Amino acid sequence: MLRSCAIRLRALGSPPARPPEAARRLFSSEKAIHKDYALPNPSWSKDLRLLFDQFMRKCEDGSWKRLPSYKQNPSQVFREFQTRFVDPSLKKEEQMSKAQQFTRSFEEGLGFEYVMFYSNAEKRIVCFFQGGLHLQGVPGFLHGGAIATIIDVTAGMCAIAEGIVMTANLNINYKKPIPLCSVVVLNSQLDKVEGRKVFISCTVQSIDEKTVHTEATGTCFGRASNSLVQDLGSFPLRP
Amino acid sequence: MLRSCAIRLRALGSPPARPPEAARRLFSSEKAIHKDYALPNPSWSKDLRLLFDQFMRKCEDGSWKRLPSYKQNPSQVFREFQTRFVDPSLKKEEQMSKAQQFTRSFEEGLGFEYVMFYSNAEKRIVCFFQGGLHLQGVPGFLHGGAIATIIDVTAGMCAIAEGIVMTANLNINYKKPIPLCSVVVLNSQLDKVEGRKVFISCTVQSIDEKTVHTEATGTCFGRASNSLVQDLGSFPLRP
Repeated sequence: MLRSCAIRLRALGSPPARPPEAARRLFSSEKAIHKDYALPNPSWSKDLRLLFDQFMRKCEDGSWKRLPSYKQNPSQVFREFQTRFVDPSLKKEEQMSKAQQFTRSFEEGLGFEYVMFYSNAEKRIVCFFQGGLHLQGVPGFLHGGAIATIIDVTAGMCAIAEGIVMTANLNINYKKPIPLCSVVVLNSQLDKVEGRKVFISCTVQSIDEKTVHTEATGTCFGRASNSLVQDLGSFPLRP
Repeated sequence: MLRSCAIRLRALGSPPARPPEAARRLFSSEKAIHKDYALPNPSWSKDLRLLFDQFMRKCEDGSWKRLPSYKQNPSQVFREFQTRFVDPSLKKEEQMSKAQQFTRSFEEGLGFEYVMFYSNAEKRIVCFFQGGLHLQGVPGFLHGGAIATIIDVTAGMCAIAEGIVMTANLNINYKKPIPLCSVVVLNSQLDKVEGRKVFISCTVQSIDEKTVHTEATGTCFGRASNSLVQDLGSFPLRP
Protein backbone atom coordinates (compact mmCIF):
# COMPACT_ATOMS: atom_id res chain seq x y z
CA MET A 1 0.00 0.00 0.00
CA LEU A 2 2.92 2.29 0.76
CA ARG A 3 4.44 1.33 -2.57
CA SER A 4 1.27 2.06 -4.52
CA CYS A 5 0.99 5.40 -2.72
CA ALA A 6 4.55 6.28 -3.71
CA ILE A 7 3.83 5.25 -7.29
CA ARG A 8 0.69 7.37 -7.27
CA LEU A 9 2.64 10.40 -6.07
CA ARG A 10 5.30 9.84 -8.72
CA ALA A 11 2.61 9.49 -11.39
CA LEU A 12 1.68 13.11 -10.73
CA GLY A 13 5.00 14.13 -12.26
CA SER A 14 7.16 16.53 -10.26
CA PRO A 15 5.67 16.68 -6.78
CA PRO A 16 3.98 19.95 -5.88
CA ALA A 17 5.72 22.08 -3.26
CA ARG A 18 3.04 21.05 -0.75
CA PRO A 19 1.10 17.85 -1.59
CA PRO A 20 -2.55 17.86 -0.43
CA GLU A 21 -2.80 17.58 3.37
CA ALA A 22 -4.70 14.26 3.36
CA ALA A 23 -2.18 12.59 1.05
CA ARG A 24 0.76 13.81 3.13
CA ARG A 25 -0.82 12.52 6.33
CA LEU A 26 -1.55 9.11 4.80
CA PHE A 27 1.95 8.86 3.39
CA SER A 28 3.75 9.75 6.61
CA SER A 29 1.59 7.57 8.88
CA GLU A 30 1.88 4.54 6.54
CA LYS A 31 5.63 5.00 6.52
CA ALA A 32 5.70 4.87 10.34
CA ILE A 33 3.37 1.86 10.46
CA HIS A 34 5.25 -0.21 7.89
CA LYS A 35 8.69 0.64 9.18
CA ASP A 36 10.60 -2.48 10.17
CA TYR A 37 11.54 -2.08 13.85
CA ALA A 38 13.73 -5.19 14.04
CA LEU A 39 16.75 -3.26 12.76
CA PRO A 40 19.43 -1.35 14.72
CA ASN A 41 18.64 2.17 15.91
CA PRO A 42 20.73 4.62 17.97
CA SER A 43 19.23 3.35 21.26
CA TRP A 44 20.70 -0.13 20.74
CA SER A 45 23.61 -0.90 23.05
CA LYS A 46 26.93 -2.23 21.77
CA ASP A 47 25.97 -5.72 23.03
CA LEU A 48 22.71 -5.73 21.07
CA ARG A 49 24.45 -4.57 17.89
CA LEU A 50 27.16 -7.23 18.19
CA LEU A 51 24.58 -10.01 18.60
CA PHE A 52 22.59 -8.63 15.67
CA ASP A 53 25.69 -8.58 13.42
CA GLN A 54 26.66 -12.09 14.50
CA PHE A 55 23.25 -13.53 13.56
CA MET A 56 23.00 -11.51 10.34
CA ARG A 57 26.12 -13.37 9.25
CA LYS A 58 24.35 -16.68 10.07
CA CYS A 59 21.53 -15.58 7.76
CA GLU A 60 23.85 -15.42 4.76
CA ASP A 61 23.65 -19.17 4.00
CA GLY A 62 19.87 -19.22 4.61
CA SER A 63 20.03 -21.41 7.75
CA TRP A 64 18.68 -18.50 9.84
CA LYS A 65 16.22 -15.80 8.91
CA ARG A 66 15.75 -12.39 10.53
CA LEU A 67 12.07 -11.70 11.24
CA PRO A 68 10.89 -8.15 10.50
CA SER A 69 8.53 -6.45 12.97
CA TYR A 70 5.91 -3.71 12.50
CA LYS A 71 3.57 -1.45 14.44
CA GLN A 72 0.70 -2.86 12.39
CA ASN A 73 1.19 -6.27 10.85
CA PRO A 74 0.94 -5.94 7.05
CA SER A 75 0.45 -9.67 6.50
CA GLN A 76 -2.51 -10.84 4.41
CA VAL A 77 -3.18 -13.53 7.04
CA PHE A 78 -3.66 -10.85 9.71
CA ARG A 79 -5.89 -8.77 7.43
CA GLU A 80 -8.11 -11.82 6.86
CA PHE A 81 -8.18 -12.47 10.63
CA GLN A 82 -9.30 -8.89 11.21
CA THR A 83 -12.10 -9.18 8.65
CA ARG A 84 -13.39 -12.39 10.23
CA PHE A 85 -13.07 -11.81 13.96
CA VAL A 86 -12.93 -8.14 14.90
CA ASP A 87 -16.00 -6.47 16.38
CA PRO A 88 -17.59 -4.20 13.73
CA SER A 89 -17.53 -1.21 16.11
CA LEU A 90 -13.74 -1.47 16.22
CA LYS A 91 -13.42 -1.78 12.46
CA LYS A 92 -14.19 1.92 12.05
CA GLU A 93 -11.14 3.38 10.42
CA GLU A 94 -10.55 6.00 13.11
CA GLN A 95 -10.23 3.24 15.72
CA MET A 96 -8.29 0.44 14.07
CA SER A 97 -5.91 2.80 12.27
CA LYS A 98 -4.65 3.91 15.69
CA ALA A 99 -4.20 0.33 16.98
CA GLN A 100 -0.57 -0.67 17.36
CA GLN A 101 1.34 -3.82 18.13
CA PHE A 102 1.90 -3.66 21.93
CA THR A 103 5.65 -4.22 21.80
CA ARG A 104 6.18 -1.60 19.07
CA SER A 105 4.12 1.20 20.61
CA PHE A 106 6.98 2.84 22.57
CA GLU A 107 9.35 5.64 21.66
CA GLU A 108 12.74 4.48 20.41
CA GLY A 109 14.79 2.94 23.22
CA LEU A 110 12.20 3.36 25.99
CA GLY A 111 10.29 0.11 25.51
CA PHE A 112 10.94 -3.19 23.78
CA GLU A 113 14.02 -3.14 21.54
CA TYR A 114 14.42 -6.60 20.04
CA VAL A 115 15.15 -8.65 16.98
CA MET A 116 14.21 -12.27 16.36
CA PHE A 117 15.95 -14.85 14.18
CA TYR A 118 14.29 -18.09 13.05
CA SER A 119 15.81 -21.44 12.16
CA ASN A 120 13.35 -23.56 10.22
CA ALA A 121 15.55 -26.67 10.50
CA GLU A 122 15.75 -26.38 14.29
CA LYS A 123 12.21 -24.96 14.75
CA ARG A 124 13.82 -22.42 17.02
CA ILE A 125 13.66 -18.66 17.57
CA VAL A 126 16.45 -16.64 19.12
CA CYS A 127 15.46 -13.17 20.32
CA PHE A 128 17.86 -10.48 21.50
CA PHE A 129 16.03 -8.10 23.81
CA GLN A 130 16.93 -4.80 25.48
CA GLY A 131 14.20 -3.56 27.83
CA GLY A 132 14.05 0.23 28.15
CA LEU A 133 13.33 2.61 31.01
CA HIS A 134 9.55 2.59 30.50
CA LEU A 135 9.30 -1.12 31.28
CA GLN A 136 10.08 -0.74 34.97
CA GLY A 137 8.62 -2.96 37.70
CA VAL A 138 10.44 -2.66 41.04
CA PRO A 139 12.99 0.17 40.79
CA GLY A 140 15.85 -0.63 38.40
CA PHE A 141 14.38 -3.87 37.06
CA LEU A 142 12.07 -4.99 34.26
CA HIS A 143 8.40 -5.49 35.08
CA GLY A 144 7.30 -9.14 35.26
CA GLY A 145 4.62 -8.26 32.69
CA ALA A 146 7.23 -6.94 30.26
CA ILE A 147 9.17 -10.21 30.57
CA ALA A 148 5.94 -12.18 30.05
CA THR A 149 5.28 -10.05 26.98
CA ILE A 150 8.61 -10.67 25.26
CA ILE A 151 8.27 -14.39 26.08
CA ASP A 152 4.76 -14.42 24.58
CA VAL A 153 6.06 -12.70 21.44
CA THR A 154 9.02 -15.07 21.02
CA ALA A 155 7.13 -18.26 21.88
CA GLY A 156 4.20 -17.15 19.73
CA MET A 157 6.48 -16.47 16.78
CA CYS A 158 7.97 -19.95 17.22
CA ALA A 159 4.49 -21.47 16.97
CA ILE A 160 3.34 -19.13 14.21
CA ALA A 161 5.22 -21.19 11.62
CA GLU A 162 2.25 -23.53 12.11
CA GLY A 163 -0.25 -20.79 11.17
CA ILE A 164 -1.87 -17.88 13.08
CA VAL A 165 -1.86 -18.80 16.75
CA MET A 166 -3.39 -17.61 19.99
CA THR A 167 -1.63 -18.30 23.29
CA ALA A 168 -3.66 -20.74 25.41
CA ASN A 169 -1.27 -21.12 28.34
CA LEU A 170 1.87 -19.42 29.57
CA ASN A 171 3.68 -20.76 32.64
CA ILE A 172 6.55 -18.52 33.68
CA ASN A 173 9.18 -19.06 36.38
CA TYR A 174 10.96 -15.82 37.26
CA LYS A 175 14.34 -16.84 38.65
CA LYS A 176 16.47 -13.70 38.69
CA PRO A 177 15.32 -10.15 37.98
CA ILE A 178 16.51 -8.45 34.76
CA PRO A 179 18.13 -5.01 35.19
CA LEU A 180 16.62 -2.21 33.08
CA CYS A 181 18.55 -1.45 29.86
CA SER A 182 20.50 -4.73 29.91
CA VAL A 183 20.44 -7.15 26.97
CA VAL A 184 19.18 -10.70 27.40
CA VAL A 185 18.81 -13.66 25.03
CA LEU A 186 15.56 -15.57 24.60
CA ASN A 187 15.69 -19.09 23.18
CA SER A 188 12.34 -20.48 22.14
CA GLN A 189 11.92 -24.02 20.92
CA LEU A 190 8.94 -25.74 19.35
CA ASP A 191 8.72 -28.96 21.38
CA LYS A 192 5.76 -30.73 19.77
CA VAL A 193 2.56 -30.27 17.76
CA GLU A 194 -0.60 -32.21 18.65
CA GLY A 195 -3.41 -31.40 16.25
CA ARG A 196 -4.04 -27.65 16.64
CA LYS A 197 -1.99 -27.48 19.88
CA VAL A 198 1.61 -26.27 19.67
CA PHE A 199 3.90 -26.74 22.70
CA ILE A 200 6.82 -24.36 23.17
CA SER A 201 9.52 -23.80 25.76
CA CYS A 202 11.44 -20.59 26.26
CA THR A 203 14.38 -19.46 28.39
CA VAL A 204 15.68 -15.95 29.08
CA GLN A 205 19.41 -15.85 29.75
CA SER A 206 22.22 -13.35 30.13
CA ILE A 207 24.44 -12.87 27.07
CA ASP A 208 27.22 -15.01 28.59
CA GLU A 209 24.63 -17.74 29.31
CA LYS A 210 25.77 -17.86 32.96
CA THR A 211 22.51 -16.52 34.37
CA VAL A 212 19.07 -17.98 33.68
CA HIS A 213 16.68 -15.12 34.37
CA THR A 214 13.41 -16.78 33.39
CA GLU A 215 12.08 -20.13 32.19
CA ALA A 216 8.71 -20.64 30.58
CA THR A 217 6.52 -23.09 28.74
CA GLY A 218 3.67 -22.17 26.46
CA THR A 219 0.79 -23.78 24.63
CA CYS A 220 -0.73 -22.16 21.56
CA PHE A 221 -3.72 -22.99 19.41
CA GLY A 222 -3.31 -22.71 15.64
CA ARG A 223 -5.96 -20.95 13.60
CA ALA A 224 -4.80 -21.56 10.05
CA SER A 225 -2.22 -23.60 8.21
CA ASN A 226 -0.62 -20.68 6.36
CA SER A 227 3.02 -20.21 7.13
CA LEU A 228 3.03 -16.71 8.53
CA VAL A 229 6.80 -16.65 8.88
CA GLN A 230 7.02 -17.12 5.11
CA ASP A 231 4.35 -14.49 4.61
CA LEU A 232 6.17 -12.01 6.88
CA GLY A 233 9.43 -12.71 5.12
CA SER A 234 8.00 -11.85 1.73
CA PHE A 235 7.04 -8.36 2.85
CA PRO A 236 9.63 -5.75 1.79
CA LEU A 237 12.03 -5.36 4.69
CA ARG A 238 12.69 -1.67 4.04
CA PRO A 239 9.63 -0.22 2.36
CA MET B 1 9.01 16.40 47.59
CA LEU B 2 6.42 18.09 45.37
CA ARG B 3 4.86 19.61 48.47
CA SER B 4 8.17 20.96 49.75
CA CYS B 5 8.85 22.39 46.31
CA ALA B 6 5.48 24.15 46.29
CA ILE B 7 6.15 25.50 49.78
CA ARG B 8 9.56 26.72 48.66
CA LEU B 9 8.03 28.55 45.72
CA ARG B 10 5.39 30.13 47.93
CA ALA B 11 8.10 31.20 50.43
CA LEU B 12 9.49 33.44 47.71
CA GLY B 13 6.41 35.64 48.05
CA SER B 14 4.47 36.44 44.88
CA PRO B 15 5.79 34.14 42.18
CA PRO B 16 7.86 35.85 39.50
CA ALA B 17 6.29 36.03 36.05
CA ARG B 18 8.74 33.37 34.86
CA PRO B 19 10.30 31.17 37.57
CA PRO B 20 13.86 30.02 36.83
CA GLU B 21 13.94 27.39 34.06
CA ALA B 22 15.41 24.61 36.24
CA ALA B 23 12.78 25.07 38.95
CA ARG B 24 9.97 25.10 36.40
CA ARG B 25 11.24 21.88 34.81
CA LEU B 26 11.57 20.15 38.19
CA PHE B 27 8.12 21.27 39.23
CA SER B 28 6.38 20.12 36.07
CA SER B 29 8.15 16.75 35.84
CA GLU B 30 7.51 15.98 39.53
CA LYS B 31 3.88 16.84 39.01
CA ALA B 32 3.65 14.33 36.15
CA ILE B 33 5.51 11.62 38.11
CA HIS B 34 3.47 11.96 41.29
CA LYS B 35 0.12 12.31 39.55
CA ASP B 36 -2.26 9.59 40.68
CA TYR B 37 -3.33 7.71 37.51
CA ALA B 38 -5.97 5.56 39.21
CA LEU B 39 -8.59 8.28 38.81
CA PRO B 40 -11.05 8.88 35.94
CA ASN B 41 -9.81 10.69 32.83
CA PRO B 42 -11.61 11.55 29.58
CA SER B 43 -10.52 8.27 27.93
CA TRP B 44 -12.45 6.19 30.46
CA SER B 45 -15.56 4.56 29.00
CA LYS B 46 -18.96 4.87 30.66
CA ASP B 47 -18.60 1.27 31.95
CA LEU B 48 -15.29 2.01 33.65
CA ARG B 49 -16.67 5.18 35.27
CA LEU B 50 -19.76 3.36 36.57
CA LEU B 51 -17.65 0.61 38.15
CA PHE B 52 -15.32 3.22 39.66
CA ASP B 53 -18.25 5.15 41.18
CA GLN B 54 -19.79 1.94 42.53
CA PHE B 55 -16.59 0.94 44.34
CA MET B 56 -15.87 4.47 45.56
CA ARG B 57 -19.18 4.21 47.42
CA LYS B 58 -17.97 0.91 48.97
CA CYS B 59 -14.90 2.80 50.21
CA GLU B 60 -17.00 5.16 52.30
CA ASP B 61 -17.32 2.76 55.27
CA GLY B 62 -13.64 1.78 55.04
CA SER B 63 -14.27 -1.84 53.98
CA TRP B 64 -12.62 -1.16 50.61
CA LYS B 65 -9.74 1.12 49.75
CA ARG B 66 -8.86 2.59 46.37
CA LEU B 67 -5.16 2.14 45.58
CA PRO B 68 -3.41 5.12 43.97
CA SER B 69 -0.96 4.48 41.12
CA TYR B 70 2.06 6.48 39.89
CA LYS B 71 4.61 6.60 37.10
CA GLN B 72 7.34 6.41 39.74
CA ASN B 73 6.42 4.87 43.05
CA PRO B 74 6.92 7.47 45.80
CA SER B 75 6.86 4.91 48.61
CA GLN B 76 9.70 4.90 51.13
CA VAL B 77 9.83 1.10 50.83
CA PHE B 78 10.58 1.39 47.08
CA ARG B 79 13.21 4.07 47.67
CA GLU B 80 14.98 1.79 50.15
CA PHE B 81 14.77 -1.09 47.67
CA GLN B 82 16.36 1.09 45.01
CA THR B 83 19.23 2.06 47.32
CA ARG B 84 19.94 -1.56 48.22
CA PHE B 85 19.51 -3.44 44.94
CA VAL B 86 19.87 -1.22 41.88
CA ASP B 87 23.09 -1.35 39.87
CA PRO B 88 25.12 1.83 40.54
CA SER B 89 25.40 2.61 36.81
CA LEU B 90 21.61 2.89 36.68
CA LYS B 91 21.44 5.10 39.75
CA LYS B 92 22.77 8.04 37.78
CA GLU B 93 20.06 10.63 37.95
CA GLU B 94 19.72 11.01 34.18
CA GLN B 95 18.86 7.32 33.89
CA MET B 96 16.61 6.52 36.84
CA SER B 97 14.72 9.80 36.60
CA LYS B 98 13.46 8.66 33.19
CA ALA B 99 12.41 5.21 34.42
CA GLN B 100 8.65 4.74 34.56
CA GLN B 101 6.26 2.15 35.86
CA PHE B 102 5.53 -0.04 32.79
CA THR B 103 1.74 0.16 33.05
CA ARG B 104 1.76 3.95 33.47
CA SER B 105 4.12 4.81 30.62
CA PHE B 106 1.44 5.23 27.92
CA GLU B 107 -0.42 8.29 26.73
CA GLU B 108 -3.88 8.71 28.25
CA GLY B 109 -6.29 6.06 26.94
CA LEU B 110 -3.83 4.23 24.67
CA GLY B 111 -2.38 1.79 27.20
CA PHE B 112 -3.44 0.48 30.59
CA GLU B 113 -6.34 2.40 32.12
CA TYR B 114 -7.18 0.79 35.44
CA VAL B 115 -8.06 1.26 39.06
CA MET B 116 -7.64 -1.23 41.88
CA PHE B 117 -9.62 -1.56 45.10
CA TYR B 118 -8.40 -3.55 48.11
CA SER B 119 -10.35 -5.30 50.83
CA ASN B 120 -8.13 -6.05 53.81
CA ALA B 121 -10.78 -8.26 55.45
CA GLU B 122 -11.15 -10.40 52.32
CA LYS B 123 -7.45 -10.15 51.27
CA ARG B 124 -8.79 -9.42 47.82
CA ILE B 125 -8.10 -6.93 45.03
CA VAL B 126 -10.64 -5.96 42.39
CA CYS B 127 -9.21 -4.24 39.33
CA PHE B 128 -11.25 -2.58 36.59
CA PHE B 129 -9.20 -2.51 33.40
CA GLN B 130 -9.69 -0.92 29.98
CA GLY B 131 -6.94 -1.88 27.51
CA GLY B 132 -6.23 0.78 24.87
CA LEU B 133 -5.32 0.67 21.19
CA HIS B 134 -1.56 0.41 21.81
CA LEU B 135 -1.92 -2.94 23.56
CA GLN B 136 -2.83 -4.88 20.44
CA GLY B 137 -1.85 -8.51 19.83
CA VAL B 138 -3.78 -10.13 16.96
CA PRO B 139 -5.87 -7.44 15.23
CA GLY B 140 -8.68 -6.11 17.41
CA PHE B 141 -7.65 -7.94 20.58
CA LEU B 142 -5.37 -7.36 23.57
CA HIS B 143 -1.86 -8.80 23.45
CA GLY B 144 -1.33 -11.85 25.69
CA GLY B 145 1.57 -9.96 27.26
CA ALA B 146 -0.68 -7.02 28.16
CA ILE B 147 -3.10 -9.42 29.87
CA ALA B 148 -0.17 -11.07 31.71
CA THR B 149 0.96 -7.60 32.76
CA ILE B 150 -2.32 -6.47 34.30
CA ILE B 151 -2.60 -9.89 36.04
CA ASP B 152 0.94 -9.48 37.41
CA VAL B 153 0.09 -5.99 38.67
CA THR B 154 -3.16 -7.08 40.33
CA ALA B 155 -1.82 -10.33 41.80
CA GLY B 156 1.35 -8.57 42.91
CA MET B 157 -0.65 -5.83 44.65
CA CYS B 158 -2.66 -8.54 46.41
CA ALA B 159 0.57 -10.05 47.75
CA ILE B 160 2.18 -6.70 48.48
CA ALA B 161 0.15 -6.35 51.65
CA GLU B 162 2.73 -8.88 52.92
CA GLY B 163 5.65 -6.55 52.04
CA ILE B 164 7.59 -5.81 48.82
CA VAL B 165 7.24 -8.83 46.57
CA MET B 166 8.77 -10.20 43.41
CA THR B 167 6.75 -12.56 41.21
CA ALA B 168 8.28 -16.06 41.21
CA ASN B 169 5.71 -17.84 39.06
CA LEU B 170 2.79 -16.86 36.88
CA ASN B 171 0.64 -19.56 35.26
CA ILE B 172 -1.92 -18.09 32.88
CA ASN B 173 -4.74 -19.81 31.00
CA TYR B 174 -6.05 -17.64 28.18
CA LYS B 175 -9.61 -18.80 27.56
CA LYS B 176 -11.25 -16.11 25.43
CA PRO B 177 -9.55 -13.12 23.78
CA ILE B 178 -10.31 -9.63 25.14
CA PRO B 179 -11.42 -7.05 22.54
CA LEU B 180 -9.39 -3.82 22.49
CA CYS B 181 -11.00 -0.91 24.39
CA SER B 182 -13.43 -3.14 26.31
CA VAL B 183 -13.59 -3.13 30.11
CA VAL B 184 -12.90 -6.29 32.11
CA VAL B 185 -12.84 -7.08 35.82
CA LEU B 186 -9.89 -8.76 37.54
CA ASN B 187 -10.47 -10.51 40.85
CA SER B 188 -7.32 -11.41 42.71
CA GLN B 189 -7.37 -13.39 45.92
CA LEU B 190 -4.58 -14.14 48.39
CA ASP B 191 -4.96 -17.91 48.87
CA LYS B 192 -2.22 -18.67 51.38
CA VAL B 193 1.10 -17.52 52.83
CA GLU B 194 3.89 -20.02 53.54
CA GLY B 195 6.93 -18.31 55.01
CA ARG B 196 8.07 -15.80 52.37
CA LYS B 197 5.89 -17.43 49.68
CA VAL B 198 2.55 -15.84 48.87
CA PHE B 199 0.06 -17.77 46.70
CA ILE B 200 -2.49 -15.83 44.67
CA SER B 201 -5.22 -16.65 42.17
CA CYS B 202 -6.67 -14.23 39.65
CA THR B 203 -9.52 -14.28 37.13
CA VAL B 204 -10.31 -11.86 34.32
CA GLN B 205 -14.01 -11.65 33.53
CA SER B 206 -16.43 -9.58 31.50
CA ILE B 207 -18.39 -6.94 33.44
CA ASP B 208 -21.53 -9.11 33.46
CA GLU B 209 -19.42 -12.03 34.78
CA LYS B 210 -20.76 -14.26 31.99
CA THR B 211 -17.42 -14.63 30.22
CA VAL B 212 -14.21 -15.81 31.87
CA HIS B 213 -11.44 -14.43 29.65
CA THR B 214 -8.42 -15.56 31.63
CA GLU B 215 -7.54 -17.55 34.76
CA ALA B 216 -4.19 -17.42 36.50
CA THR B 217 -2.30 -18.44 39.59
CA GLY B 218 0.78 -16.72 40.91
CA THR B 219 3.48 -17.22 43.51
CA CYS B 220 5.37 -14.27 44.93
CA PHE B 221 8.31 -13.97 47.28
CA GLY B 222 8.12 -11.32 50.00
CA ARG B 223 11.10 -9.07 50.64
CA ALA B 224 10.02 -7.13 53.73
CA SER B 225 7.26 -7.16 56.29
CA ASN B 226 6.20 -3.53 55.81
CA SER B 227 2.63 -3.13 54.69
CA LEU B 228 3.11 -1.37 51.39
CA VAL B 229 -0.61 -0.99 50.83
CA GLN B 230 -0.75 1.07 54.03
CA ASP B 231 2.34 3.00 52.93
CA LEU B 232 0.82 3.72 49.50
CA GLY B 233 -2.42 4.76 51.09
CA SER B 234 -0.72 7.35 53.27
CA PHE B 235 0.73 9.14 50.25
CA PRO B 236 -1.32 12.22 49.29
CA LEU B 237 -3.80 11.08 46.67
CA ARG B 238 -3.85 14.40 44.85
CA PRO B 239 -0.52 16.11 45.43
